[in-house]
Amino acid sequence: MPVVNRGAMAYERANIQRMQGYVPGKQPQDAGTIKLNTNENPYPPSPAVMRALTSIAAESLRKYPPPLADAFREVAADLHHVTPDSVIATNGGDELLRLALTTFVEPGRPIGVLEPSYSLYPVLAEIHDSPVVHVDAVAGYSVPPDFAAKMNAAGVQLSLLVNPHAPSGALTPVSTLRAIAQELDGVLLVDEAYVDFVEPGLGHNLVPEVKSQKNLLILRTMSKGYGLAGLRYGYGLGHPELIAPMLTKTRDSYNVDAIAQRLATAALQDQAYARDTWQRVRSERARVTLALRGVGFVVPDSQSNFVLATVPAGSLNAPALRDALEQRQLLVRYFNAPGLTDKLRITIGSPEENDRLLATLTALLAGL
Amino acid sequence: MPVVNRGAMAYERANIQRMQGYVPGKQPQDAGTIKLNTNENPYPPSPAVMRALTSIAAESLRKYPPPLADAFREVAADLHHVTPDSVIATNGGDELLRLALTTFVEPGRPIGVLEPSYSLYPVLAEIHDSPVVHVDAVAGYSVPPDFAAKMNAAGVQLSLLVNPHAPSGALTPVSTLRAIAQELDGVLLVDEAYVDFVEPGLGHNLVPEVKSQKNLLILRTMSKGYGLAGLRYGYGLGHPELIAPMLTKTRDSYNVDAIAQRLATAALQDQAYARDTWQRVRSERARVTLALRGVGFVVPDSQSNFVLATVPAGSLNAPALRDALEQRQLLVRYFNAPGLTDKLRITIGSPEENDRLLATLTALLAGL
Repeated sequence: MPVVNRGAMAYERANIQRMQGYVPGKQPQDAGTIKLNTNENPYPPSPAVMRALTSIAAESLRKYPPPLADAFREVAADLHHVTPDSVIATNGGDELLRLALTTFVEPGRPIGVLEPSYSLYPVLAEIHDSPVVHVDAVAGYSVPPDFAAKMNAAGVQLSLLVNPHAPSGALTPVSTLRAIAQELDGVLLVDEAYVDFVEPGLGHNLVPEVKSQKNLLILRTMSKGYGLAGLRYGYGLGHPELIAPMLTKTRDSYNVDAIAQRLATAALQDQAYARDTWQRVRSERARVTLALRGVGFVVPDSQSNFVLATVPAGSLNAPALRDALEQRQLLVRYFNAPGLTDKLRITIGSPEENDRLLATLTALLAGL
Repeated sequence: MPVVNRGAMAYERANIQRMQGYVPGKQPQDAGTIKLNTNENPYPPSPAVMRALTSIAAESLRKYPPPLADAFREVAADLHHVTPDSVIATNGGDELLRLALTTFVEPGRPIGVLEPSYSLYPVLAEIHDSPVVHVDAVAGYSVPPDFAAKMNAAGVQLSLLVNPHAPSGALTPVSTLRAIAQELDGVLLVDEAYVDFVEPGLGHNLVPEVKSQKNLLILRTMSKGYGLAGLRYGYGLGHPELIAPMLTKTRDSYNVDAIAQRLATAALQDQAYARDTWQRVRSERARVTLALRGVGFVVPDSQSNFVLATVPAGSLNAPALRDALEQRQLLVRYFNAPGLTDKLRITIGSPEENDRLLATLTALLAGL
């Protein structure tokens, strides 16, 4: 048979050909850059994690890892007061997002998101060949009362809400989320990537709802709260009936490796260390918010480890300010998206990093 | 609104509801069991890998990993004499299999496999909601001459061949695979999970074909040849046009973690160590093959790190023998599948493990 000479991309599915890939924030590997662009924790993982790393035996690398991450799931279940079959470990929170689409959404049927939101959600929908139903956030980046009704009317099988909201840091209370889950015909995934940074005095805890809401799936990640973005480890919490198909069917057979299971377990077990870093971030968040307001930014209160700052009129615009900061080795995030073009999302760093950010911003706004 | 009380599994897609999940081989975590059931390398990873492990800094865990695994891809490209854009790093070889379906197969369109073959392929097809076209292997577990024609006639978009073949260890030569790739309308994925164990004297090397065959995707894994099954690291080799959509669109944004990237790179860089383990396995493979034949098993020559042994008639049947071995803490693999019900797949272990297997089998067959 003759060689069939096919052009570029001839083998890709049509939806893959026409889509754009997700563009993550810049990840320079040099130590000199201050990264306030991808919401990493400014504090390293617990010393217990580093001890677990040095205790990894060659034999545990030679053999396949525990396929279901049982030891990790037991520790996570204890922490959250649920049963282990309410927990699934994933290769970063991103894997849980993908598994939710794979498991609960027929290709062609829509998913639903709040607008604005995490920019990865529509990308995952394109890969899955599913349209996206967007519902605009209302004042203060909150979820409108008709969110569930609109999703149901559009036949949405999976709705995604990030809470605290990204990129604003606004927190939707448990009562609202419960009502949405109850009203939705499909699954509600609440992406709690940033929930560790919520003020503890608010008593915010959505996890108990998974016992009664069979369509509620909660995403957690070790990337932010536990200083482990490099490890790629997240987990899902949900009713066992909702978790089971992902755990036993749609997940890659060995989706989290032996080292990651051990380190993530050690991190969860050192809650005292993690809580201390969260409190430090909250303290700095309050300071940075006030300081930014002091030089003219509009900054809503955030319950996350970042703030969304509207750049003062008359100065450099947001992308220009982002570029000027980058020239000074300070990375922040700018989104060229509706409602966000005059804003920067700034991760809360260490006190020293925040000092340098604030000093640099003040100088730039003063035209120095 | 009232709570809608939905029954179990009400949120799963229909294809997920009706499918069975993949069942991996048993992975006991105790040290006393001899595991000859999941084709792990009997030798641990290179000491260079363990040194890399102890050099991981907390800072590289705190930050997101290099999203595209650039350093690893450069080392892999050098090793295989291709360009880095011909390489994609994946979370185990399994992820590459999934990505190939996601990227190249419309749900509902079929994939094609040789029968028998790796039992994960049909499971991935069910998750993707794609039917499977099976073509029976011919004498010696080889690919029949009309394989590509049958796939084309059925409209197959992705054909999967594991080479050396599993579970037999038979090797299909490069010339045959080239001809199949040339004839196929869709993508040909050649799963080379076990290729490191092929006799070097055969000069088998499929990789140069990716430069001219734009539909040829080769899967490699660190799990077997590099003693790193616990790390979950694999990679794909293909024409840059075939790799690009997986690399830039369908892959999870940070699919391989910072530790795994570093350890896999260290493993690839120590080819001398790896080649020594492969030669040891080949030497034991020859010994085990002859010894099994000596006690009545039919064992075809294998180019892999396992052999497929037909249990002698008149003794315990294959599942009973598997069970009797397991009671003696020796795990081997039995497949309850057409053509395999009288056979056991036995991984080549260390000399001591193989001694114990052979002694135990001999005693069991003698009714001791």
